[in-house]
Amino acid sequence: MKERVYLYDTTLRDGQQTQGVQFSTREKQQIAGALDRLGVDYVEGGWPGANPTDSEFFEVPPAMSAVLTAFGMTKRAGRSAENDDVLAAVLNAGTPAVCLVGKSHDFHVTCALGISLEENVENIRASIAHIVSLGREALFDAEHFFDGYDANPAYALECVKAAYEAGARWVVLCDTNGGAQPSRIADVVRDVIAAGIPGDHLGIHCHNDTEQAVAGSLAALEAGARQIQGTLNGLGERCGNANLTTLIPTLLLKEPYASKYDTGVSFAALEGMVKVSRMLDDILNRVPQRQAPYVGASAFAHKAGLHASAILKDPSTYEHIDPAAVGNNRIIPMSNQAGQSNLRRRLAEAGLEVAAGDPALGRILDTVKEREAEGYSYDGAQASFELLAREELGLRPRFFEVKRYRVSIERRKNKYNKMVSLSEAVVVVKVGGEKKLSVSESMDENGTDRGPVNALSKALAKDLGPYQEMIDDMRLVDFKVRITQGGTEAVTRVIIDSEDDKGRRWSTVGVSANIVDASFEALLDAIAWKLLRDGAVPAE
Amino acid sequence: MKERVYLYDTTLRDGQQTQGVQFSTREKQQIAGALDRLGVDYVEGGWPGANPTDSEFFEVPPAMSAVLTAFGMTKRAGRSAENDDVLAAVLNAGTPAVCLVGKSHDFHVTCALGISLEENVENIRASIAHIVSLGREALFDAEHFFDGYDANPAYALECVKAAYEAGARWVVLCDTNGGAQPSRIADVVRDVIAAGIPGDHLGIHCHNDTEQAVAGSLAALEAGARQIQGTLNGLGERCGNANLTTLIPTLLLKEPYASKYDTGVSFAALEGMVKVSRMLDDILNRVPQRQAPYVGASAFAHKAGLHASAILKDPSTYEHIDPAAVGNNRIIPMSNQAGQSNLRRRLAEAGLEVAAGDPALGRILDTVKEREAEGYSYDGAQASFELLAREELGLRPRFFEVKRYRVSIERRKNKYNKMVSLSEAVVVVKVGGEKKLSVSESMDENGTDRGPVNALSKALAKDLGPYQEMIDDMRLVDFKVRITQGGTEAVTRVIIDSEDDKGRRWSTVGVSANIVDASFEALLDAIAWKLLRDGAVPAE
Repeated sequence: MKERVYLYDTTLRDGQQTQGVQFSTREKQQIAGALDRLGVDYVEGGWPGANPTDSEFFEVPPAMSAVLTAFGMTKRAGRSAENDDVLAAVLNAGTPAVCLVGKSHDFHVTCALGISLEENVENIRASIAHIVSLGREALFDAEHFFDGYDANPAYALECVKAAYEAGARWVVLCDTNGGAQPSRIADVVRDVIAAGIPGDHLGIHCHNDTEQAVAGSLAALEAGARQIQGTLNGLGERCGNANLTTLIPTLLLKEPYASKYDTGVSFAALEGMVKVSRMLDDILNRVPQRQAPYVGASAFAHKAGLHASAILKDPSTYEHIDPAAVGNNRIIPMSNQAGQSNLRRRLAEAGLEVAAGDPALGRILDTVKEREAEGYSYDGAQASFELLAREELGLRPRFFEVKRYRVSIERRKNKYNKMVSLSEAVVVVKVGGEKKLSVSESMDENGTDRGPVNALSKALAKDLGPYQEMIDDMRLVDFKVRITQGGTEAVTRVIIDSEDDKGRRWSTVGVSANIVDASFEALLDAIAWKLLRDGAVPAE
Repeated sequence: MKERVYLYDTTLRDGQQTQGVQFSTREKQQIAGALDRLGVDYVEGGWPGANPTDSEFFEVPPAMSAVLTAFGMTKRAGRSAENDDVLAAVLNAGTPAVCLVGKSHDFHVTCALGISLEENVENIRASIAHIVSLGREALFDAEHFFDGYDANPAYALECVKAAYEAGARWVVLCDTNGGAQPSRIADVVRDVIAAGIPGDHLGIHCHNDTEQAVAGSLAALEAGARQIQGTLNGLGERCGNANLTTLIPTLLLKEPYASKYDTGVSFAALEGMVKVSRMLDDILNRVPQRQAPYVGASAFAHKAGLHASAILKDPSTYEHIDPAAVGNNRIIPMSNQAGQSNLRRRLAEAGLEVAAGDPALGRILDTVKEREAEGYSYDGAQASFELLAREELGLRPRFFEVKRYRVSIERRKNKYNKMVSLSEAVVVVKVGGEKKLSVSESMDENGTDRGPVNALSKALAKDLGPYQEMIDDMRLVDFKVRITQGGTEAVTRVIIDSEDDKGRRWSTVGVSANIVDASFEALLDAIAWKLLRDGAVPAE
């Protein structure tokens, strides 16, 4: 009989405290949906009232199986829980669960809050009791618990016992500053259980300031705690929170956890782990960390020669889990043989069957290598990769030729004396021997200037003669820009995601020192791929 | 009386097995020098004979206090240690210490090597004895030791005891596949000590596949092992090795380690930790990880409002160590989570003293919130933040006004029938009542088109009348682009980093659906900030 461990995600709250991270309401909804499908038990959505995005998110909460939780702080001294406006804003979000952070370290009570130790205990008790009286699930985040316990164990225990006795479903021990070592965390959790708070009411909240947030969380679990708080990709204040992207596979796949504990995450959902991690990176426009445990692109890359040859005999020789269990892939970068079989698999996915040993395989690998050195990246641009491969295989039809283009961007005062900008693009293409000039501007239906790439895209799609019908249902849905190194100079890499009415979605890449030109290259690839898929016949 | 713990660095060997990492000989020398100055005990330089770079590195070994170590493998079966050419190449490097990897997991002996269990033990014994007979220090890396101990503890112990009894100074227990959990590592280390190998002859070599390489190393230390192997920045095969950049500060600054153990690293050397970490990133041309423990740029960034206000009272409220101890800095980024005290501190850093309770503080916070909702981000754009604050405080001088601009981007065939692109920008500004038109193009001195933003930047900087001299030493050094959500629409956020000859570096932000316009906004802020800092007097 396995014991249940509860997973509490705080990507949308503590994760948002990462330097440089600011989610939009729509992004919060998207992340909450992914967490819910993954199977976490609690999704902490933010702090209602603390900023406009968090408030907006709670106004139209997403429908979920996970328990949506609002975060806030215990009531302030000198007023009742009912009359604290900050607490009221949190409760007004109407979530089934509410998590309040409060002090448990005497130094913080006197230094940061400037109130008496008794007042703080009363603030905790009254706040939790108020939540419970409203029929909501209450959680208490005991801030700085481990430092507080080191300094004044009796007071730290008094704080968490006040929360527990007031009806908190969970008392969460927070290593707020991230400095507590796993063995100390285990000892303290055991002490807290011995002092009367049962383990199945205890949670752990670790930070990664000594790179041990995952280890600290597991140490607390082994000592008896039954809720783990963390974030996707280990986002969070300073060095981040405990990384659920690592903890979840570890709990499901590694001993002693796999046979002792159950979580709400299924093995089927676990296979989506890489995708969930990448989705978050996409939202943040971050380069995914290649070496991230389980989900990184290099997590199952075997570079050492001895490793690579043994892996061919039996993958378990140098892999602690099967990469497929988390939706990842094995990579053998040094082995030319494996490189070619990987390539053949990728070509087959694009419908291109190439025989083993075909010299075109070597040429394709060389071209990819050369272009990656110039700043291209084909990992996230499968459509451009396919076009490149077709080029080498002599299977790339030429549908049209761009003779030239010109874009102008102007910013000036309009007749109401307001500064406005507008872009205009002229594109000249040759289709089936015929020269066609098209012009478009960048204004959308709301009168917003969408910029030069938008104008170019519209001009290019305006008249492609016999292909026109095929590209009419094509839309540019995303546009990612990175400054990267191409040889010795910084260049711009643009990745464009396109979609059509047949439900296809494809990605193309362009690279240039000129951002507009890089975008144009990616646009041309996007159109070429679409025409290929729709079976267009070259007109020239 | 503290016990001595020995640090063994394998950045140049296991670190080089990171996907995408290939050091040159000169880079290896540079890294070895930095490790030596830091005070690690052993520097593993590579595998002599395995590749040309490693061989070249050992031909002219750097002079060091650290023990230079050559890596190799135990002799193969069917020949003597004296007659194994692979082993001979390793010994010929003439290093004071030699570390040989060998099998200790029965499955690997039979599956990967295809020899008998007895032959493997004899290979270990004879190889180590041979090194010792040459008067060199011998180390034995017991590959897959923890998996091997789980599968066949008697055989795993037989292997390491053979090495120890043959005279190995260190027997290193390797968690090669990275899947062993810290508590299991501690148990096994205790068992090995109980079986007769003293802790001060035991080393630990962890990988980060479950994000616990640091925790596993410390667990082994607490269980009695006295050598820790790792790499700078956690480089290494797959997810990397135990991160010495994290382990070293933890051993020197955190309990229970600081008062129990000594290492060869001094507190003075520790203050260079951030620099050593950045040096390696520079060599690898990698963007440093902001959230890296101790050394990351965000490691001491306090974004949450509650944290930031307490930090002002006492930094120890939200910091587990003093950032200066590792050569790092505290950051209080501006964002919509920040409170008024955080704001006042940030203003003070910009030379703006604002009294607590000044209503301008609320206005500034509101404006930051509004603009962040539109897609701006002031975390990484301190100069734009300062300009925004000055606006609200009535302290922002107007130096010039942009009346209009126009950029054109053209791509066409040149006279050699090659496609080339060129951008041209016209900017019209009013300075002190005088209207000035400037025009520039985007070609750099190598004939490369640097794009529309470059042309705009040059045109804008071409003639600013009385301010011209002040901006002549200003350079655009970095340019970051993100597609982000502004309200309901996708917008482009551009962050520009500028530099001047006075050694200042500042960052500004612009947001628009039009990428060129967003860039222009950031450019204007960059110039305005520079004029302000240089004490320009408004001419209009």
